[in-house]
Amino acid sequence: MDRQGPLATVRRAVDEFARNYCAADERWCVALSGGADSLALAAAAACVRPTVALIVDHGLQPDSDAVANTARDQALGLGCVEAQILRVDVGTRGGPEAAARTARYAALDVARGGLPVLVAHTLDDQAETVLLGLGRGSGARSIAGMRPHDPPWGRPLLGVRRTATLGACEELGLEPWHDPHNADPRFTRVRLRAEVLPLLEEVLGGGVAEALARTAIGLREDTETLDAMAALALAEVRAGTGLGSRLNAVRLADVPPGVRRRVIRRWLLDGGASTLTDGQIRGVDLLVVDRRRRGGVAVGSPLRNQRLFADRAGDALVLRTENV
Amino acid sequence: MDRQGPLATVRRAVDEFARNYCAADERWCVALSGGADSLALAAAAACVRPTVALIVDHGLQPDSDAVANTARDQALGLGCVEAQILRVDVGTRGGPEAAARTARYAALDVARGGLPVLVAHTLDDQAETVLLGLGRGSGARSIAGMRPHDPPWGRPLLGVRRTATLGACEELGLEPWHDPHNADPRFTRVRLRAEVLPLLEEVLGGGVAEALARTAIGLREDTETLDAMAALALAEVRAGTGLGSRLNAVRLADVPPGVRRRVIRRWLLDGGASTLTDGQIRGVDLLVVDRRRRGGVAVGSPLRNQRLFADRAGDALVLRTENV
Repeated sequence: MDRQGPLATVRRAVDEFARNYCAADERWCVALSGGADSLALAAAAACVRPTVALIVDHGLQPDSDAVANTARDQALGLGCVEAQILRVDVGTRGGPEAAARTARYAALDVARGGLPVLVAHTLDDQAETVLLGLGRGSGARSIAGMRPHDPPWGRPLLGVRRTATLGACEELGLEPWHDPHNADPRFTRVRLRAEVLPLLEEVLGGGVAEALARTAIGLREDTETLDAMAALALAEVRAGTGLGSRLNAVRLADVPPGVRRRVIRRWLLDGGASTLTDGQIRGVDLLVVDRRRRGGVAVGSPLRNQRLFADRAGDALVLRTENV
Repeated sequence: MDRQGPLATVRRAVDEFARNYCAADERWCVALSGGADSLALAAAAACVRPTVALIVDHGLQPDSDAVANTARDQALGLGCVEAQILRVDVGTRGGPEAAARTARYAALDVARGGLPVLVAHTLDDQAETVLLGLGRGSGARSIAGMRPHDPPWGRPLLGVRRTATLGACEELGLEPWHDPHNADPRFTRVRLRAEVLPLLEEVLGGGVAEALARTAIGLREDTETLDAMAALALAEVRAGTGLGSRLNAVRLADVPPGVRRRVIRRWLLDGGASTLTDGQIRGVDLLVVDRRRRGGVAVGSPLRNQRLFADRAGDALVLRTENV
């Protein structure tokens, strides 16, 4: 925490974000749930420039209507120039968390009317995201966390602790909504927050959330640099586009491994692969570096009755489909 | 686990390591503690080529002498051509774990007589190392884990689970030594193994150790690629060497952030900085990208009565010292 107090900490983070990323904008939106993080964000944002609060009512809890109305009143009380409630229907695809997120972002994207939207993810959310990504084990990409600036979305609070947003609400005399989902141990993220992170803090001697957030920043920079190199390398070794494209495997073999795997990943995705695992990418990589390797590598295809294979043909890598 | 059984799994890992990294060697050493991991490694290694077992007696436990003698007998029984006991004095510098490791590697390095030394770190050790590194939060470098081949050290079992080395010992009818340190919760690593990893496995739905090990491999490749790019960029922007060297900050500002931070890190270390934090490197980076920034950044110096500063002087970054 800061000598200045939590509200000033939140304010400064929003100020800095505005300077770095939103210099040309006159207004912006804030995605408001009524929880402490987004209330504190809305309060700080409204001090910086004219702010539209967008409140998504997912309709998942019996009192969601009242929660949304309270949030709207709080937003206007904090000086937001406008506050809209967006009622959405949440599907089921990908589980309850993913379905709610999909519906929420779609509604926000429609309602923002071309303006940027600030969302209230904190340093603690970022740390949880890194831990979730670790469980996937797909390297830097899966643990690089959330981007601070991912237009139209902005995340000014990725360097701010959750204790600061709670403290800011207290300073403002605001009673934040406590989402019952945030205490439900059926959600992986809740257990990471309530059980795993406190244990890690204890065992590693503190500072873990900050360390995870720093790691995310470093890996984000690394992976963006390597992705840019891979885009250049792909352009040099590829002939053709989409499913019909081929890669020059001989030239690709000279590319450093960290870049080479990213070239392969991009090529497979452009060719129609739907899901990709680290193992599949490494399987294709072996076709590049080990000439004795025989047989194609199956990768996920979005079509039910087709399978997609990456294979070596002479000096080239090719994609082919097979009907199932 | 494998259809072939645990001993075959260990054997195959050692075979593959020999093919990839030790083609030219006739003999090799194995660092043997008498625990399950190194016993299984010694057994597999002795089947592949003439093997010298090196047994370090740290003298830290009353029965260490007997443990070392048992390990020597087991090594010879497994077909090692030679088994030496190395008695070392463990200092206190950096805490008990670090001091024992320093003494151990120094003794092994002397005793190996120019041969490569295999050490028995497993996939589980690698996963624990990644978690330990996460707590430091210094980006890819601190979570890239241990190298499989870091001459003269070789780690053939980084892809093998600890359950396989235990199973291999059972198959061989060997009774491995159980190091009491491995159950002592005063050691951070022990608590990661006994408490944090099982909880993470439960919360994230399994596969966490493998995911952490895969992450280590990916980040190792990434960081080696970026380090190589940074070495090239450093050569281009540096004038002079050591403490007197200067960096062309204007040209450095055009280097991608992930590479730029590595250039700065290398330059500071070459100039005499002893310890470096992510925050210090980013502080110096601000001197590069933000011309309005004033004042030097203090970095750790190995000399007690001197402080080391990185500072901007016109278009250059310079290092200067100050007496304390």
